Amino acid sequence: MAVRAAVAGASGYAGGEVLRLLAGHPEVEIGALTANASAGQRLGAVQPHLVPLADRVLAETSAEVLAGHDVVFLALPHGQSAAVAEQLGQDVLVVDMGADFRLKDAADWERFYGSPHAGTWPYGLPELPGGRAALEGTKRIAVPGCYPTAVSLALAPAYAAALAEPEAVIVAASGTSGAGKAPKPHLLGSEVMGSMSPYGVGGGHRHTPEMIQNLSAAAGTRVGVSFTPTLAPMPRGILATCTAKAAPGVTAADVRAAYEKAYADEPFVHLLPEGQWSATASVYGSNAVHLQVALDPDAHRVIAISAIDNLTKGTAGGAVQSMNIALGLPETTGLNTIGVAP
Amino acid sequence: MAVRAAVAGASGYAGGEVLRLLAGHPEVEIGALTANASAGQRLGAVQPHLVPLADRVLAETSAEVLAGHDVVFLALPHGQSAAVAEQLGQDVLVVDMGADFRLKDAADWERFYGSPHAGTWPYGLPELPGGRAALEGTKRIAVPGCYPTAVSLALAPAYAAALAEPEAVIVAASGTSGAGKAPKPHLLGSEVMGSMSPYGVGGGHRHTPEMIQNLSAAAGTRVGVSFTPTLAPMPRGILATCTAKAAPGVTAADVRAAYEKAYADEPFVHLLPEGQWSATASVYGSNAVHLQVALDPDAHRVIAISAIDNLTKGTAGGAVQSMNIALGLPETTGLNTIGVAP
Amino acid sequence: MAVRAAVAGASGYAGGEVLRLLAGHPEVEIGALTANASAGQRLGAVQPHLVPLADRVLAETSAEVLAGHDVVFLALPHGQSAAVAEQLGQDVLVVDMGADFRLKDAADWERFYGSPHAGTWPYGLPELPGGRAALEGTKRIAVPGCYPTAVSLALAPAYAAALAEPEAVIVAASGTSGAGKAPKPHLLGSEVMGSMSPYGVGGGHRHTPEMIQNLSAAAGTRVGVSFTPTLAPMPRGILATCTAKAAPGVTAADVRAAYEKAYADEPFVHLLPEGQWSATASVYGSNAVHLQVALDPDAHRVIAISAIDNLTKGTAGGAVQSMNIALGLPETTGLNTIGVAP
Amino acid sequence: MAVRAAVAGASGYAGGEVLRLLAGHPEVEIGALTANASAGQRLGAVQPHLVPLADRVLAETSAEVLAGHDVVFLALPHGQSAAVAEQLGQDVLVVDMGADFRLKDAADWERFYGSPHAGTWPYGLPELPGGRAALEGTKRIAVPGCYPTAVSLALAPAYAAALAEPEAVIVAASGTSGAGKAPKPHLLGSEVMGSMSPYGVGGGHRHTPEMIQNLSAAAGTRVGVSFTPTLAPMPRGILATCTAKAAPGVTAADVRAAYEKAYADEPFVHLLPEGQWSATASVYGSNAVHLQVALDPDAHRVIAISAIDNLTKGTAGGAVQSMNIALGLPETTGLNTIGVAP
Repeated sequence: MAVRAAVAGASGYAGGEVLRLLAGHPEVEIGALTANASAGQRLGAVQPHLVPLADRVLAETSAEVLAGHDVVFLALPHGQSAAVAEQLGQDVLVVDMGADFRLKDAADWERFYGSPHAGTWPYGLPELPGGRAALEGTKRIAVPGCYPTAVSLALAPAYAAALAEPEAVIVAASGTSGAGKAPKPHLLGSEVMGSMSPYGVGGGHRHTPEMIQNLSAAAGTRVGVSFTPTLAPMPRGILATCTAKAAPGVTAADVRAAYEKAYADEPFVHLLPEGQWSATASVYGSNAVHLQVALDPDAHRVIAISAIDNLTKGTAGGAVQSMNIALGLPETTGLNTIGVAP
Repeated sequence: MAVRAAVAGASGYAGGEVLRLLAGHPEVEIGALTANASAGQRLGAVQPHLVPLADRVLAETSAEVLAGHDVVFLALPHGQSAAVAEQLGQDVLVVDMGADFRLKDAADWERFYGSPHAGTWPYGLPELPGGRAALEGTKRIAVPGCYPTAVSLALAPAYAAALAEPEAVIVAASGTSGAGKAPKPHLLGSEVMGSMSPYGVGGGHRHTPEMIQNLSAAAGTRVGVSFTPTLAPMPRGILATCTAKAAPGVTAADVRAAYEKAYADEPFVHLLPEGQWSATASVYGSNAVHLQVALDPDAHRVIAISAIDNLTKGTAGGAVQSMNIALGLPETTGLNTIGVAP
Repeated sequence: MAVRAAVAGASGYAGGEVLRLLAGHPEVEIGALTANASAGQRLGAVQPHLVPLADRVLAETSAEVLAGHDVVFLALPHGQSAAVAEQLGQDVLVVDMGADFRLKDAADWERFYGSPHAGTWPYGLPELPGGRAALEGTKRIAVPGCYPTAVSLALAPAYAAALAEPEAVIVAASGTSGAGKAPKPHLLGSEVMGSMSPYGVGGGHRHTPEMIQNLSAAAGTRVGVSFTPTLAPMPRGILATCTAKAAPGVTAADVRAAYEKAYADEPFVHLLPEGQWSATASVYGSNAVHLQVALDPDAHRVIAISAIDNLTKGTAGGAVQSMNIALGLPETTGLNTIGVAP
Repeated sequence: MAVRAAVAGASGYAGGEVLRLLAGHPEVEIGALTANASAGQRLGAVQPHLVPLADRVLAETSAEVLAGHDVVFLALPHGQSAAVAEQLGQDVLVVDMGADFRLKDAADWERFYGSPHAGTWPYGLPELPGGRAALEGTKRIAVPGCYPTAVSLALAPAYAAALAEPEAVIVAASGTSGAGKAPKPHLLGSEVMGSMSPYGVGGGHRHTPEMIQNLSAAAGTRVGVSFTPTLAPMPRGILATCTAKAAPGVTAADVRAAYEKAYADEPFVHLLPEGQWSATASVYGSNAVHLQVALDPDAHRVIAISAIDNLTKGTAGGAVQSMNIALGLPETTGLNTIGVAP
């Protein structure tokens, strides 16, 4: 019997991507689709790439419309998920693709989001130590942020194996879809094509505390993070360049071995052969993480570089992967590791 | 029992795309992969997006290596397919993604390709009148060119219904993957980003006689074509703007009705609702054709605009679709109509 | 003594481009800069590329602020120029980069813009027959639309020499800056990168009557135009592919000769050597028009393809060129024909 | 009397850019243009954007052709400049845009380039401490690498003021023109559009020792550098994100003050107002450096981010700026700080 899934926020980029994946998921039947400003429109008018769902009409987001499904994906502005989730009941699997339930520390939440903390849900990054167990059978999933997904998978093995000092320096480039579909002047095609630009510099990005949370858990001690996100002239993709001083005596072979061991059995993490580096084009539309790691012999730093699709593994693909685990389905169902390239 | 498929020319863009599709095809098992300059390399080194096949090693293209498969896809430079096909025998389904067997007229071939004509195979565009029947049970398929796919599907209904005069004016924009993976200065990223440029202007493009062949068949009379291809700053996609003087008395309603009728049951041709126009982003990586048509009331011209992914519906997706028909499989097996967007 | 110039609408793309050019114009001193929503801001906050003017503060647009200049450039939404121009007096040179005064036919204006016609000013395309004379000493200039600039220069010589039949078919690709800086969802970088899409299809684009006006004047008879604009994934540039049935007996040599003669002395129109085609990258940021023309021997059509920078020659460069003529300065002052490439 | 300038390597990107600038330089007359593979061709065939020079013919590179000029710009593959320079004599100003004479340490050269060290010339980065004096009256100039230009200007003030610890972590994104015009598969438009990818990771990039040289000179002690370059989907531009642990007790005000002081009188370094960050689009085609700096309060790191045009300030503009100093011309002659945006 099919799993019935609803999507709240189906007109945006995260909502569109989860629908793209669910439409190809053999165990899922797509139910209600809701939106706010676009309610009443055909889905085809706002998501023309989703041909099989083109004639579906977007409903206003409400608990009534979302009721009666086995799974509800929330792609809502932050701060709105808690109210909706409460009305859905404890027997419905609620997968929140927003930020509301990612952070464990209420003070972090309040500092970075400026509103009361709604709580903490099981965290949807199964590749982290203990990550998979936390998701089995759960009815609530907080899907990680796109940058924290790329960064945590890049550096967790180094910290879990005590290979790096607890101060990470991270510079990541993201495609523009990470900034969403609400039109803003700096996101216009005229502005972003041909341009690289940083934003949220100096500790201000909301994804920083989430990275610190994940890396500290892997390290067993607090890891400081200097994170600089940049906007890149491409629609999708994150390339995260993550470095940290290597612990004394650590060799390139130690680093390689730790990563090979950490990801030997992971279906979506693709540790590249030595010498080959990640590129976002290779993961376009796929749930794969392309990862490479090296030891800079001069600077004695671990350099781990991951490439993901911010909308797939970084959002909707990660959400479906975690849903699969929560429902007891094979984890890779409806997902793939093949990018659309060139 | 799985269909065993080999791909000759697996290191290029057409070869890579057919592998992307075959890897998700439930009835196909991927066999030999061959190349020329890249023979001996891991597939992952040249097609890093094809993770599940990364450790496959490319063999030198030869009849021996390609033998023993049910289907062989040829993605070879033009002029090379005939020799390979001959050695494969008549019981193997050979799907040629090159130009060698597309044209019926030997003089056309010789004029545009400057070499002797190898012959004509059943033409892999099932949506054309009579197209599907020609493919059932065949052991040889000539996959259409990417531009002729976009153009023929855009204009055939108008000509089949005698709505347009037999002189078509076509301007099409193609992503750069249509020009292949062999490095040439004008295809460098530095040259193509930020630039639109025409090429093969004035009747010189090799796809012109193929369009004339298809449109003339639909019209039942010779259709002249003025075709201007342009290179657009995007990796994939064709947008074909196709116009022709409307026949006297033809109305917008006549035009709409003809296209609705022509494509009512086609699984891959998506005639958009009136007023919504095609965009290549919507078909990225999908086998769909997004099509819109209108009658310009002032110029009294039929304007049909189609968007396809040049590598999917325009090459490898069309190849798999025709293979499905030839093998008696459901036509849509392993293909989808959902693009990767944004 | 320097010419003092003001710019109304300095926060937008046309306003920014005219400032870029005026800042390098040896005879011009930049005076008042005005805006609407951005009034009160530093220019550097909205036009960060204009470093020498970064600390200028944008004033609210008003006749008072614009008074006291020799030249006033208007980069305003259509419909607003007439009121401003009236208040400026007849001794000030007013250069309107909007549409208000381009069309001669009031009925055309009303049909395409839906408001009363404000009048007709001397038309700022000196390369058209008689174009230069109309601008000498004038105090009012209507700067042409970007598409009509590209198209009129591409086809006027063919019509002036009676080489083509009076039905032109034009497909043009424009960079996104042509759509302006007001944020709209379909202009987001995420939407436009990787995508070609048409708009205003079927005679609806407002630039169509302007093309008809120019080409008809060149031909001495009414020329019908089928015009399809498309949005291309690049910030700047127009590539206009313009074709028309050649008159009976016209040869390729006739066509070449007519264009060589028409543009032999034009400083900004660069007729390319035979066989080399226009590309928008070559005119990036320059006032040049790269033009090529051919006769398709099979379709017997004249094919003229022009590339311009829509913001430079297509808007602000054309405006400065016409200002130079009106003021009696050498026409090329402050302008150049060298693009920023690659 | 005009300065006569020749350009060796006029068919490549650096050569084309120096010609673009020299064509607008009021004191320079352009003399011989040479190339290798393109010798004998019209310049317009390989650099179509340089309209005023289109009919110049490229000569074979030789001392004879380059003789008789006041200045010779060399845009040659590394290892070739020394032989040419020797033949030109000591009274000719030779400006080498290649790497041959940048490094002071012969061992560094041999490690990174694998050939004997040719020597060290005055270094063409006048904004560094002592940089301007080293160039006055010189007859030999080593133009810095594009990355070292961006990085050295971003971090030198912090090191000169002893605000940062001597271990810098740098991640930079470059447009593809930085990789040159020789066609290679990974530089194809199909590969680079939509993709961010690192290269030369782990200390291997040849620009690393040059950065160490410059930053160490500023600091008065050896500065270690961890440098990761990435290829971005744009033709031009470098965004360099440069961070280093702040020295104990350093405040945000200390950092701001040091940068304001360092660059108060620099014509090309534009320290942005606090809170506004650099973007490569703003420096497109200009010689400006857009720079911002902050102190991350949590990680206690100095974060300096610079944006330059890799071909202008990063290569040819820097070359012209240094030429101006060497010849006693005003430093900004023929250069500007206005980018072509959007």
